Amino acid sequence: MKRIIVSAWLLLVLAVGTLFGQEAKYVFYFIGDGMGLNQVNGAEAYRAELEGRIGIQPLLFTQFPYATVATTYSATNGVTDSAASGTALATGHKTKNGVIGMNKERDSVLTSVAVWAKENGARVGISTSVSVDHATPSAFYAHVPDRGMYYQIGKDLIKTGFDFYAGSDFLKPVDRKAPEEAPLYEQCRQGGYTIARGYKEYRKRARKAEKIILLQSEEASQRDRSSIPYAIDRENGDLTLAEITRAGVNFLSKDLSKGFFFMIEGGKIDWACHANDAATVFQEVIDLDDAVRVAYEFYEQHPDETLIVVTADHETGGLALGTGAYALNLQALKYQQMSVNKFSRLLNDLRARTGNKVTWEMVRRALEENFGFWTSLKLSDKQEKRLRKTFDENFLNKEAALDASEYQKDERLATVAKEIINEIALVGWMSGSHSDAYVPVFAIGAGAEKFCRRTDNAEIPLKIAEAAGWR
Amino acid sequence: MKRIIVSAWLLLVLAVGTLFGQEAKYVFYFIGDGMGLNQVNGAEAYRAELEGRIGIQPLLFTQFPYATVATTYSATNGVTDSAASGTALATGHKTKNGVIGMNKERDSVLTSVAVWAKENGARVGISTSVSVDHATPSAFYAHVPDRGMYYQIGKDLIKTGFDFYAGSDFLKPVDRKAPEEAPLYEQCRQGGYTIARGYKEYRKRARKAEKIILLQSEEASQRDRSSIPYAIDRENGDLTLAEITRAGVNFLSKDLSKGFFFMIEGGKIDWACHANDAATVFQEVIDLDDAVRVAYEFYEQHPDETLIVVTADHETGGLALGTGAYALNLQALKYQQMSVNKFSRLLNDLRARTGNKVTWEMVRRALEENFGFWTSLKLSDKQEKRLRKTFDENFLNKEAALDASEYQKDERLATVAKEIINEIALVGWMSGSHSDAYVPVFAIGAGAEKFCRRTDNAEIPLKIAEAAGWR
Repeated sequence: MKRIIVSAWLLLVLAVGTLFGQEAKYVFYFIGDGMGLNQVNGAEAYRAELEGRIGIQPLLFTQFPYATVATTYSATNGVTDSAASGTALATGHKTKNGVIGMNKERDSVLTSVAVWAKENGARVGISTSVSVDHATPSAFYAHVPDRGMYYQIGKDLIKTGFDFYAGSDFLKPVDRKAPEEAPLYEQCRQGGYTIARGYKEYRKRARKAEKIILLQSEEASQRDRSSIPYAIDRENGDLTLAEITRAGVNFLSKDLSKGFFFMIEGGKIDWACHANDAATVFQEVIDLDDAVRVAYEFYEQHPDETLIVVTADHETGGLALGTGAYALNLQALKYQQMSVNKFSRLLNDLRARTGNKVTWEMVRRALEENFGFWTSLKLSDKQEKRLRKTFDENFLNKEAALDASEYQKDERLATVAKEIINEIALVGWMSGSHSDAYVPVFAIGAGAEKFCRRTDNAEIPLKIAEAAGWR
Repeated sequence: MKRIIVSAWLLLVLAVGTLFGQEAKYVFYFIGDGMGLNQVNGAEAYRAELEGRIGIQPLLFTQFPYATVATTYSATNGVTDSAASGTALATGHKTKNGVIGMNKERDSVLTSVAVWAKENGARVGISTSVSVDHATPSAFYAHVPDRGMYYQIGKDLIKTGFDFYAGSDFLKPVDRKAPEEAPLYEQCRQGGYTIARGYKEYRKRARKAEKIILLQSEEASQRDRSSIPYAIDRENGDLTLAEITRAGVNFLSKDLSKGFFFMIEGGKIDWACHANDAATVFQEVIDLDDAVRVAYEFYEQHPDETLIVVTADHETGGLALGTGAYALNLQALKYQQMSVNKFSRLLNDLRARTGNKVTWEMVRRALEENFGFWTSLKLSDKQEKRLRKTFDENFLNKEAALDASEYQKDERLATVAKEIINEIALVGWMSGSHSDAYVPVFAIGAGAEKFCRRTDNAEIPLKIAEAAGWR
């Protein structure tokens, strides 16, 4: 009986709170690209196994008071791509795979929850760990029939005029077909944007900036403009998703009276899934959680007026935790010191340093140091033979064979090492593409109770807008 | 503003309802064995594709107002079996794989939510589409260190003394090691149970019965005592899970003043997943939904006092919807007329009828009729060659090669036909075992709001007991 009275009191307080309380004035919308449910569950199981136990070591966002799932099929495909799912998550409309911010006939534009926020006077930020013109972020501001139209997307970014953008860089700052136009950087400045390179520079320039675009350093972009480094490969000075989130909160908070909408994409979970690189995937999910933590700190200061939603656009890779035995062995992944892609670059550097005279002993040492093979992880004869055969076929004056996944090309030997550590960890991947799976939806704060029942990706922006009073 | 006032009113009504309303007096607890999230999503996508469109055709239970996910790891394994997960779902305690209703050290018994319900005066029913002594149902009433101790489990069933049990049969009605003991059927009668064979007999005997056990007909058990037939293979007169549910509701409603706890397992989703038989899986999920519909009819009559929870014990098969292309082709599965296992039996019957002189033309006709190969589904040269090669190797006076999955043995040719229709449907399976995946939790009714946040399988019976006031 006591329990019932307490519950009733709670509901009364909620009722009164709703009558006199605030709508969601500050909205955080986190999207883990490719972050299916197994990616989240796997990251937590991996964390537990690193501590030497079975179970999960919970992330912050999985502990939010509301957790449900969403369907993701696109208007044209049972399995969506990031353009169609980004458009659904941004605009509330399903579209054709490959299309950004337009209907499936590609003859009319769809506006996003970010635009509705702006129209209602809120400040707006759009950010990602990949390039600012990539599918997911662009779905919030651009309208193009083909996600590959990066230059056009960049122009839409300026035109839409949101307060804060962040990502690694622009993928195509110059359009070879329109040589008379200034590079996008210059066009951004003309559009009133300050461009900051790196978090330090952001902190210097933010105060005086009216609108700002945070990109990684030029040196980092010279190495790889398409994304910031994987969390597992992070070096001192690399821009991080948590820094991007911190910068965004800082910038959008300049005038708290206006409220804000802030989308943050963990874009490289997807990339690592396309490459079937489990340790790198789990580290990226944990890295997204670190970014969520920044939003959570803001939430703690404004709990009645802040909504945080964490979801994903689709599952990538058909990840299965368990490959036949009734067990996992994710602790094996602790010996993986870098992404498969970085290991591939390491092999390539070895080739360069030795004039392509890399020996088996050098490769073996690299595998020991970076995957724990032999020293920490026992290999079967078959696995060792596969590595040796791959070495024989691809090294000692031979040209490297490359295996291409969606966003990277890796040396065959790096691919084989990855396959072997997946085998040892008992992690399976169905493909290098997306699958049709529910994605998780976690929510906390004002309006979070809208995320109780199974939903569809296209409903999420409508629920957010409703919580914020933006429609 | 209007919206806010309406919300506040709703909450006020809820608050008053909680103060004066009832606890969950009638509890339905559905467990889809092996029903991971992809099994549910796939069943709905399959239903939509059968209607010729992309998307989902929702089941009833996925539309419940609360939908979340639960972790499933056992005390000893990252990937649980049905004994450990059944024990978690029943008792609120994780245990060792293989153990039923005991702690992981196997030195003390754990009581289940069904027992708590009984102790609180409620009537109790435990039912399944497989044998009544299988892992999931037995976790609610038995205490054995090894799930394979079927005879002992049967004795615990009688000892626990619940009002209603249902399933295909007992797996081991006689213990060869204790020949002096009467068969379980006789022990049941001595324990006060009426045994009804089939739904018709249930209806005849239920009124006068104090406690009842509903099993399938003896003829059905002679064919296969381990389970009722797959939904896709159902013939007139076969016992169904919906009938079991209807019988249970009827029997437990004899004295509505006491309230009831009723567990219903869709046990063969798991079996079809072990066999990687997609159409059969989706039909089993739909069949579980038909059983939920029976509970929902009861809920509609007693909405303030009824709680329905639908969940699963684990994922089976590492099912992936999509194998590389950004598409599904589940409509291909509409041509599959029977389970892979029944097709295997059909081949076996052909062998028997012809004195093992089955011709390629006969096999080809069987594949046309039961999988739509050639007539409705175009095969690649490679696929056709695989079938032909399998035929050459296994027919025409040769003995059938059998592929064993967890619960069935299928002729090699049936296995290959299944692999080919999976390829065509773009459905992938990682293994014939379980995987570590979140399972879905759907809830409606009194106390359903306890299922908002991500949970663990061991928390579910505690939440149910709390909703019902049984602890």
